Amino acid sequence: MNQTITAVTGLEAGHHTDLEHATGCTVFLCREGAVGGVDVRGGSPGTRETDLLRPVHQVDQVHAVVLSGGSAFGLDAASGVVAFLESQNIGFKVGTKDNPVVVPIVSSAILYDLGLITSEVRPGPEEGRSACLAATSDPMTEGSVGAGTGATVAKLGGSEQGVKGGIGSAAITLSTGQTVAAAVAVNAVGGIFDYTNGQLLAGPRRAEGGFGDPVAMLLTGESNSPAGPVNTTIGLVATDAQITKEDANYLARVSHDGLALAIRPCHTARDGDSMFAMATGHNKSPVDLTSLGAAAVEATAQAVLRAVRKATGLGGIPSISELAA
Amino acid sequence: MNQTITAVTGLEAGHHTDLEHATGCTVFLCREGAVGGVDVRGGSPGTRETDLLRPVHQVDQVHAVVLSGGSAFGLDAASGVVAFLESQNIGFKVGTKDNPVVVPIVSSAILYDLGLITSEVRPGPEEGRSACLAATSDPMTEGSVGAGTGATVAKLGGSEQGVKGGIGSAAITLSTGQTVAAAVAVNAVGGIFDYTNGQLLAGPRRAEGGFGDPVAMLLTGESNSPAGPVNTTIGLVATDAQITKEDANYLARVSHDGLALAIRPCHTARDGDSMFAMATGHNKSPVDLTSLGAAAVEATAQAVLRAVRKATGLGGIPSISELAA
Repeated sequence: MNQTITAVTGLEAGHHTDLEHATGCTVFLCREGAVGGVDVRGGSPGTRETDLLRPVHQVDQVHAVVLSGGSAFGLDAASGVVAFLESQNIGFKVGTKDNPVVVPIVSSAILYDLGLITSEVRPGPEEGRSACLAATSDPMTEGSVGAGTGATVAKLGGSEQGVKGGIGSAAITLSTGQTVAAAVAVNAVGGIFDYTNGQLLAGPRRAEGGFGDPVAMLLTGESNSPAGPVNTTIGLVATDAQITKEDANYLARVSHDGLALAIRPCHTARDGDSMFAMATGHNKSPVDLTSLGAAAVEATAQAVLRAVRKATGLGGIPSISELAA
Repeated sequence: MNQTITAVTGLEAGHHTDLEHATGCTVFLCREGAVGGVDVRGGSPGTRETDLLRPVHQVDQVHAVVLSGGSAFGLDAASGVVAFLESQNIGFKVGTKDNPVVVPIVSSAILYDLGLITSEVRPGPEEGRSACLAATSDPMTEGSVGAGTGATVAKLGGSEQGVKGGIGSAAITLSTGQTVAAAVAVNAVGGIFDYTNGQLLAGPRRAEGGFGDPVAMLLTGESNSPAGPVNTTIGLVATDAQITKEDANYLARVSHDGLALAIRPCHTARDGDSMFAMATGHNKSPVDLTSLGAAAVEATAQAVLRAVRKATGLGGIPSISELAA
């Protein structure tokens, strides 16, 4: 059974993973178009095509969301996704009968993974296209792949004390049959907490072994803001429910509560935390937005935990599974 | 030692509590003016003088924040606070030398407590003035007082299955000596969780005793959105740090992560969750915004737990301390 974001009918996911250079990108395709939304709550975001997702603005269909490494340079991965969709004649239909034009709507956010191995290689159009070619409705691969390839967490003591991050996913099916799912590429400055029991899963690694508690480190002055925007958590909540653009923006908004449950600190000035929403509309059941929202929060928080639990070490930064072994 | 929001130098707090009608208001005064910020993240807010707190807008001093019961009607409590401050010659100085004018800047948000005992009596100018006259820098009284008088939580099974809420406060002092504190009037549709161990503190009361898990109730379809905007959590984070208006808005923004940790679901369409920030600037130490933000999140989450733990039953709705007795 598919417990990942591709459990949402109409959605496909594909990764491009570059282990050699510790970067990559992930594309989520809805070839028929999805109702989209976004909420940006970090202090250092890098985004593309977010304004059109907001209420009032005209476009109400998004064909892909791209999560990418490579910092601001990685926004170029979306160019490859736009070109791929144009070649498939997928997009917003404009132009005239004699001169039809198809404009693919591709929204994107990036995270900062430069320098884990190199800062010279970043995802671009080719890598975006590669992720499109890999896209399927099979269960999404999790861990240090795609946009999570070079992701790291728990960097309040400096990047070198960090723990490997990745991309994770979780899906929840409501009693109505509606599915709400999330995929999150976790590259936070903060640590990771299991919100079901308060346990610290990943914090800055101590020289003597074990993790520091990142919140305690900030409150006691053992750490303060590290330099540079070397962080950012980005993700997507998706549902097959039939909802409005305003509702999709609501789901993107509350999904940040899922980040807040599992990542502490979260939404810092050094994180560009951004969450998208896509609703494919395949399930026509009546919508209870509070239930969809609660599921979005839970799926997002679970996806964060899975990202870190499924991660594998890279560039000298170990994963929690390796540290426990 | 003062462990409440009045530990912030320059800040005074005062309640007006009307137990007979289960409503009230709380005023936070900074007579010398504080740098202010706000973030509104619930779907059904009721607010006044929030726009001027946002970056770009000119005014950079706020003299009071008023939290009130009484739904939209309760915004009138702020009128009494404005009149009180004018009578004290406190406010934004405008006008000419010959014709000086003082305009007090008073921001406010309300919560919905109508009908716990009556919906006919709501805080107005007299009650706002009463709260001003009660304002001191003594430790703030917590529980079912002030804006928390008629507050209730855990209403996914209907208001009658709810648990008593209130107003709580917590203060954290950083190693720099800077204090960050919060006061939150908790009137959420959601339940209250101890985020340090994942334990449910307050959920919808079961006929057979004990609490339902509000998140599970939504995901399984046992409950869905209750009718009416009979909720809303409102609060203030305050600090003595010397920060900019943009920073104050950042603190208001991340304080919602504290709500997300302790209240689930949070930020629903039926909650008008709104958080203010005030910075009095008495502590001139260099600012580490990540540390201030982490403290704002913790203080807010702790304030939520204290609001519910200190609450007392009213209008037939018991508090958790009474249920445990």
